[in-house]
Amino acid sequence: MVRLTGKVLDIEYRGVLLNRDDARTIGVLDGDRVELINEEKKTVAQAFVTTTATMLQQGTAGVYQVTNRRLQLEGGEAIEIRAVGRPASIDFIKKKMDKGKLTMEETQTIIREIVDDTLSPGEISAYLVGTYINGLDMDEIEYLTRSAVNTGEKLSFASHPIVDKHSIGGVPGNKITLLVVPIIVAAGLKCPKTSSRAITGAGGTADLMEAIAPVAFSAEELQSMTEKVGGAIVWGGATNIAPADDKIILYEYPLKIDPHGQMLASVMAKKFAVGADLVVIDIPVGRYAKVTTVEEGRKLARDFMELGDRLGMRVECALTYGEAPIGRSIGVNLEVAEALRILKGEEGPDSLIQKSAVIAGIALEMAGKVQAGEGTASALDLLTSGKADAMMQKIIEVQGGDPAVTAEDLPPGDHSFTVNAPETGYVVEMNNRALITIARAAGAPHDHGAGIHLHKKQGQHVKKGDPIFTIHADRSWRLQKALEEGRRLMPVVVEGMLIDRVPGNYWRTPMH
Amino acid sequence: MVRLTGKVLDIEYRGVLLNRDDARTIGVLDGDRVELINEEKKTVAQAFVTTTATMLQQGTAGVYQVTNRRLQLEGGEAIEIRAVGRPASIDFIKKKMDKGKLTMEETQTIIREIVDDTLSPGEISAYLVGTYINGLDMDEIEYLTRSAVNTGEKLSFASHPIVDKHSIGGVPGNKITLLVVPIIVAAGLKCPKTSSRAITGAGGTADLMEAIAPVAFSAEELQSMTEKVGGAIVWGGATNIAPADDKIILYEYPLKIDPHGQMLASVMAKKFAVGADLVVIDIPVGRYAKVTTVEEGRKLARDFMELGDRLGMRVECALTYGEAPIGRSIGVNLEVAEALRILKGEEGPDSLIQKSAVIAGIALEMAGKVQAGEGTASALDLLTSGKADAMMQKIIEVQGGDPAVTAEDLPPGDHSFTVNAPETGYVVEMNNRALITIARAAGAPHDHGAGIHLHKKQGQHVKKGDPIFTIHADRSWRLQKALEEGRRLMPVVVEGMLIDRVPGNYWRTPMH
Repeated sequence: MVRLTGKVLDIEYRGVLLNRDDARTIGVLDGDRVELINEEKKTVAQAFVTTTATMLQQGTAGVYQVTNRRLQLEGGEAIEIRAVGRPASIDFIKKKMDKGKLTMEETQTIIREIVDDTLSPGEISAYLVGTYINGLDMDEIEYLTRSAVNTGEKLSFASHPIVDKHSIGGVPGNKITLLVVPIIVAAGLKCPKTSSRAITGAGGTADLMEAIAPVAFSAEELQSMTEKVGGAIVWGGATNIAPADDKIILYEYPLKIDPHGQMLASVMAKKFAVGADLVVIDIPVGRYAKVTTVEEGRKLARDFMELGDRLGMRVECALTYGEAPIGRSIGVNLEVAEALRILKGEEGPDSLIQKSAVIAGIALEMAGKVQAGEGTASALDLLTSGKADAMMQKIIEVQGGDPAVTAEDLPPGDHSFTVNAPETGYVVEMNNRALITIARAAGAPHDHGAGIHLHKKQGQHVKKGDPIFTIHADRSWRLQKALEEGRRLMPVVVEGMLIDRVPGNYWRTPMH
Repeated sequence: MVRLTGKVLDIEYRGVLLNRDDARTIGVLDGDRVELINEEKKTVAQAFVTTTATMLQQGTAGVYQVTNRRLQLEGGEAIEIRAVGRPASIDFIKKKMDKGKLTMEETQTIIREIVDDTLSPGEISAYLVGTYINGLDMDEIEYLTRSAVNTGEKLSFASHPIVDKHSIGGVPGNKITLLVVPIIVAAGLKCPKTSSRAITGAGGTADLMEAIAPVAFSAEELQSMTEKVGGAIVWGGATNIAPADDKIILYEYPLKIDPHGQMLASVMAKKFAVGADLVVIDIPVGRYAKVTTVEEGRKLARDFMELGDRLGMRVECALTYGEAPIGRSIGVNLEVAEALRILKGEEGPDSLIQKSAVIAGIALEMAGKVQAGEGTASALDLLTSGKADAMMQKIIEVQGGDPAVTAEDLPPGDHSFTVNAPETGYVVEMNNRALITIARAAGAPHDHGAGIHLHKKQGQHVKKGDPIFTIHADRSWRLQKALEEGRRLMPVVVEGMLIDRVPGNYWRTPMH
């Protein structure tokens, strides 16, 4: 144990910079873990070491911002630092690497040490790769879900049912939450919805909602807003609900892996932690979606339902059409404007309205608000009657936004370019991944005006010279970038005859 | 591509600190990779991001030391920074995670990107865990070895044979290289020996050698010293010979994994890169050694020999007794003094002399310097005649040390404590791992005087009150630490009768 004087460094990371002589005294090398103690507050962080001593005098410890959120130093305090031993989790991670089955306690230890920042990037990655290669059985997935819930905040409502929904990702333009939640709440149900920001997409629901209202709330605030107006749409990252996932995803993303068990647990932990009784899961199926075949989608649906059973939640899943973007817009302002227009009763793309009504309708049926088979019609009625819009205004207002917001307040970016049909024919392919790449190149989700408006969709006939899609950007160099990607990726294919239309026969296959 | 002004930060790490607004413009988040370009020099590094702007103004990039060794900024230069895409390796790492077989080209890409710092810790860990779980076959191990050689420096000698030796780790006090190399060179053979520093041990050969001569040399210097006097004992880390291993080990070590294929490749790449024709590998077998059974040792030996065949090197392996420390000393000065005394013809532990002579003797036989069966005797002769000592003096001198050094120049630490036998009986167990932990707690290998001197060894009879071992430390608080560990770990067990003596029947089982 060594006492050093704390100095706060302006680096957004979990770490502490040590003078190399102090590091030697503590007995750590660059990259080792140390425990830091500021009176009652303690945390574990990665040690960085100075090369010379120009940046940090001996006797001083440079505490990084993320670490300092736990220590709350102002600078100048004496802090205690010691090398920490091997985290307890390592043996359990090793057990999984050796094809063992993890117990509840072992799983809890791993997840706790991920949340506490005790594990290093290499160790977290080892855990994820171990679960990816050797798999998790349903017991282990249940333990993982419970561990993720236990290491974060939970909501607890006096009255029930609580409804929640989730869409498996991978399909651009999937702004249905902005319609589904107000419909469900307008039907008199409670829906405390936590959403994510885009990691690989052109805009997560939290990014979209943030264009019209604040989204960073604590779990307590989410609960009280839901009690007040029936629902809210917030950014999950700020709530500290099932927070392990936010760290895990950082290591899954570069490897492009999403181990089955991790994905199930990640979705269901968030539902369980908000106290949901009824959960609808939207599973888009398509060549460029996360789930590529109906069979795979059905298997995933069964696993969600089994996990729900084990946790005491009723789950229904809908396999939805994931071959093309949902609606006609991709990108923050474009998507939010599209959703607001539909809420206000203006014309909107049928695919978006239908999908939202189907998902919301399943929830209404599950909750017993309507007879089986009447959910979609009832949801459509709540939408067209303006009741969902009135509810959305309340939700925007309770989150601190302006309820009078309209589509006109959310303009697309000034810089735009329209791609026209090179020949007469049918749109035979829209490559979701390519469209997302182009939207991101244009600046989405950071630049709110950036995105893509689709004039035509898959299966539609176009004449030579007809506009197919328009790229929007807030900055001209971003538009150039997006055009370069567009030329490279050719996201929309027009051919002379309809050779490849995918039948809509898995449009809504609810499973229960 | 964004142009920023470079500023060198005194942090010993691979990274660049960006103002958060610049990071946004570049399009990277905390932890993403960026390419940095300073005229012709370029490198990839992890981006860190400021929380506010107190540490770094917008327009300035804070380049860390390891990254700056490639960019060679003095500060104030304009550098170009851009986000880099997904490394090519990721697909190959994923292939291994999915049980695929890696080609030479894929393996080469992975190793190149590890050496280049293109891969992140999480990605390197994923690769290692993938090879740990799914294994590498002998083709893949050969590709890995060749890739490790190709990404570093190589030696090339005009005259042959070149001899090399390696000891698999895990046994404390294994200072045999300090005897084996001078014996081999005294016999007229060339031996350019690269050694490692301790990672988990109480002293690697490079740590030991550094107590009597500089050890940090380039590959070119190692070659010219070997050409001049016949051999050298240097720190491999400075030579840039098969450098991937130094990075890989950083991620294996915390997980306590050493995937079979990685270990084979790591050892053999270093031998291949120095141009070795003849290689002797010492495989200690013991309960607390890396290899715990003779059967396992024989299998490992066969793999080393097969890999040697594929690379055109003749390999012989000796399974050696790894149940107890080699000789009577653990720790830098204690071990070096023990080796020097033996070279000078003073009395020394039989186990150390025998083992050194056996390993060197195999090399003499392989090189045809003596008849089969006469290697050990010939090696012993070179040792007792003072020829090995004369050669060691030349090696020390060519490396820039004082050839007149004696054991008296390497005193044990002033602070010491002797543990006496609590009862009369036999030493039935010496726990290698516990002894290493205690030596490290006492300050080894950083404090040169720190370590353990063993008065008794396994199987010996002791009377109540006889000294069993003495702990030495350079600093009194380190001695206290070591005593605490000693009380906790009980590294030596004395019992009233000999219940558990491990027969020496696998003492030298050369395989060829």
